[in-house]
Amino acid sequence: MRICMEPIGYVEEGLPEDRGRSRYQVDSVIRVKDKYARGLEGLEGYSHAFIIYWMHRAPEPMLKWRPWRRTEYPEVGVFATRFPGRPNPIGLSLVEVLRVEPPRLVVRGLDAWTGTPVLDVKPYDYHDVACCPRVPGWVRDRWEEDRDRYAREAPWMGPRC
Amino acid sequence: MRICMEPIGYVEEGLPEDRGRSRYQVDSVIRVKDKYARGLEGLEGYSHAFIIYWMHRAPEPMLKWRPWRRTEYPEVGVFATRFPGRPNPIGLSLVEVLRVEPPRLVVRGLDAWTGTPVLDVKPYDYHDVACCPRVPGWVRDRWEEDRDRYAREAPWMGPRC
Repeated sequence: MRICMEPIGYVEEGLPEDRGRSRYQVDSVIRVKDKYARGLEGLEGYSHAFIIYWMHRAPEPMLKWRPWRRTEYPEVGVFATRFPGRPNPIGLSLVEVLRVEPPRLVVRGLDAWTGTPVLDVKPYDYHDVACCPRVPGWVRDRWEEDRDRYAREAPWMGPRC
Repeated sequence: MRICMEPIGYVEEGLPEDRGRSRYQVDSVIRVKDKYARGLEGLEGYSHAFIIYWMHRAPEPMLKWRPWRRTEYPEVGVFATRFPGRPNPIGLSLVEVLRVEPPRLVVRGLDAWTGTPVLDVKPYDYHDVACCPRVPGWVRDRWEEDRDRYAREAPWMGPRC
């Protein structure tokens, strides 16, 4: 079975190539096709949304992966990480909705380069919220390393246990 | 531009056709292809995951929609709802991870029928958590209607403000 789709739009301004800033410091602009512009109406009622995109520059898929190749982390299956090199390189970012200006949408927190094809935009609602999820030790350790930065850049993000 | 992919697997047991039970009362079984079985290893370290799937029985796309056709709700753009009739009918469900038994994965909360093609599985991590999101009034009203049921069936779900 083969499933085919067309992008609803593209990332017009995304993460800079130099990686000098984190995704939470960058306002990204998504430009949907004119025929879909009205589909954005009402999204301004939400503080957050999911952007689903096609990671067109993803590395070759790997079935198991040692996160960031750090020796202190365990090797895990690709479906237990967010590593882009996956069988279907679909990207999923939770973003802040900054401005809805059809056919454009300005968000913060998108982990995608300029030119990335966008497949869908979905509002973040209460069904997407698990405030106290369990994650593996290596994920918690990685989070702790950046905790202070996240508290500054994206204070809305993270668990409340 | 046309983007094509193959499912990584299928929903082997999903929501019953009679809709007699909510998605949070149903344990769903996802069967990934044998070649991807090892990709599930490590997912048991997470309490929750996202299932990304192809809503193969979605209705025709609509650009604007009055949620559940209820007259008290406003008409909104498709990208401001989770309505399945969208340009690319990609489904996204936050689920509880119950058991990881490669090539099978047993979850609770999946909003998909038996036979649904699965495109990706991603772990739910701290970057996906916004505990106090703003949503439109109609979304909050709809949530309140089922609040007691959610508290029983999926007490981990919902905002903490």
